[in-house]
Amino acid sequence: MQERSVFFVSDQTGITIEAVGRSLISQFDQVHFIGNRAPYIDTDEKVQTICQQIQQAYDESQTAPLVFSSIIDAQHRQMIAESPCVFMDIFADYLVRLEQEFGCPGIGKTGRLHGMFDSTKYMSRIEAVDFVLGHDDGLNTHNYNAADLILLGVSRSGKTPTCLYLAMQFGLRAANYPFTEDDERYLSLNEDLKKCRDKCFGLVIDPQRLHEIRSERRPNSTYASMAQCRQEINRLLVLYEHEKIPYLNSTNFSIEEIATQILARKGMAQRFE
Amino acid sequence: MQERSVFFVSDQTGITIEAVGRSLISQFDQVHFIGNRAPYIDTDEKVQTICQQIQQAYDESQTAPLVFSSIIDAQHRQMIAESPCVFMDIFADYLVRLEQEFGCPGIGKTGRLHGMFDSTKYMSRIEAVDFVLGHDDGLNTHNYNAADLILLGVSRSGKTPTCLYLAMQFGLRAANYPFTEDDERYLSLNEDLKKCRDKCFGLVIDPQRLHEIRSERRPNSTYASMAQCRQEINRLLVLYEHEKIPYLNSTNFSIEEIATQILARKGMAQRFE
Repeated sequence: MQERSVFFVSDQTGITIEAVGRSLISQFDQVHFIGNRAPYIDTDEKVQTICQQIQQAYDESQTAPLVFSSIIDAQHRQMIAESPCVFMDIFADYLVRLEQEFGCPGIGKTGRLHGMFDSTKYMSRIEAVDFVLGHDDGLNTHNYNAADLILLGVSRSGKTPTCLYLAMQFGLRAANYPFTEDDERYLSLNEDLKKCRDKCFGLVIDPQRLHEIRSERRPNSTYASMAQCRQEINRLLVLYEHEKIPYLNSTNFSIEEIATQILARKGMAQRFE
Repeated sequence: MQERSVFFVSDQTGITIEAVGRSLISQFDQVHFIGNRAPYIDTDEKVQTICQQIQQAYDESQTAPLVFSSIIDAQHRQMIAESPCVFMDIFADYLVRLEQEFGCPGIGKTGRLHGMFDSTKYMSRIEAVDFVLGHDDGLNTHNYNAADLILLGVSRSGKTPTCLYLAMQFGLRAANYPFTEDDERYLSLNEDLKKCRDKCFGLVIDPQRLHEIRSERRPNSTYASMAQCRQEINRLLVLYEHEKIPYLNSTNFSIEEIATQILARKGMAQRFE
């Protein structure tokens, strides 16, 4: 299998350019990629160091490394472009088109946007994370009127990470409520949930997968047994259907996908200014 | 101020293409952008609906909406390209270059990578989130030998969200340890921290900013007072210097930036396969 070095170069965090680059290279199964993160490349010296690393990777492999870059400074971009690499310069390519479209130059400064946490929404996202932690796993159900969304599901079906992601990415106040093994609550929603039925969204997970996940934590327990997992999920499905709560099977989805599918299904957060 | 509609279109979550598009349009201060998220656009019908929305935005404003797309299907991309829009088609532009470079076509399938949570690392990230929650705010210090990183700081300096981000984005087991108002621990690190000194990283924050943040939670309290905030930060700086713990002033940084700067300073997670 051929090997190829890949550099993700940014004058900021590099999170976005890495996501772009990784989704592109994931299209090529037959290449083994060696990733190099290069965030905060914002001085001549740092750019020179990266150029040396690119040159070194080229010398060692006799193939040109891929370089995905979101550097804004034109001179720094030029320095990298002169290195022996396949240069994918996202700012150059798209910024020029936008400048033509708007008939004016871009600001040309870094740090205009803080990626996942843009500065204007910073505090609301921190507060949303606090809200998630204060309303995790059935805590403070009396306060559900302040929630944007309430996620329901059994233990280990992905509720907490999904809520944290919704808070960090979208600033949403997401609570979560667990249904436990032999909980009478299965038969109906409690009063706090009933009042906020429109905010509820359910998760289910294939019993086999739930069994595997739980077995890693508590091997050979009743909690992790196939019979228990199957029973919990079956009862939960009955509840969702009976209470007309929309739900999603999370088995084959990442947290990011679960979160965005919930928003799409609820029609939330699709338009913004 | 001119207005412009922007569509972020993806056959997957759309998180990455939105981050790319937002960082580009943030370069243009003089335009007011109206964002439209269009994730999971993976059928002819859904593409037609988006094309209609693009047409409608064009008809209403008589300017072409910007469309940032990461759709892979060639026919779907063609349908959007024929709409009245400024089409920034990241897959077409870069995938062709990579195909030339590797001398073979990309797989052409969606869902190759789940963005922040790629499938192979999925469980380790969930476990890292669990670790953060189990080692938040000074919990379970006896278990610090299992941590990748231990974040130190006063209340409300951003420790918990930073740890959660490190877990979700990088799969790191990040613990955090608070220093409280009149804590004797200020004078030295406790035994559990001393054993793991190499994993420690400190946060500080400008006393004025700390005062503002705390005042939102507990107005007019001693906890939020300027004197208290200044004293806590001063004592903390003495400790960091004395114990030779690297630290960062988080005042003007997003969580994403704090997290990536810590990794850069510690030389962590910069190379991966």
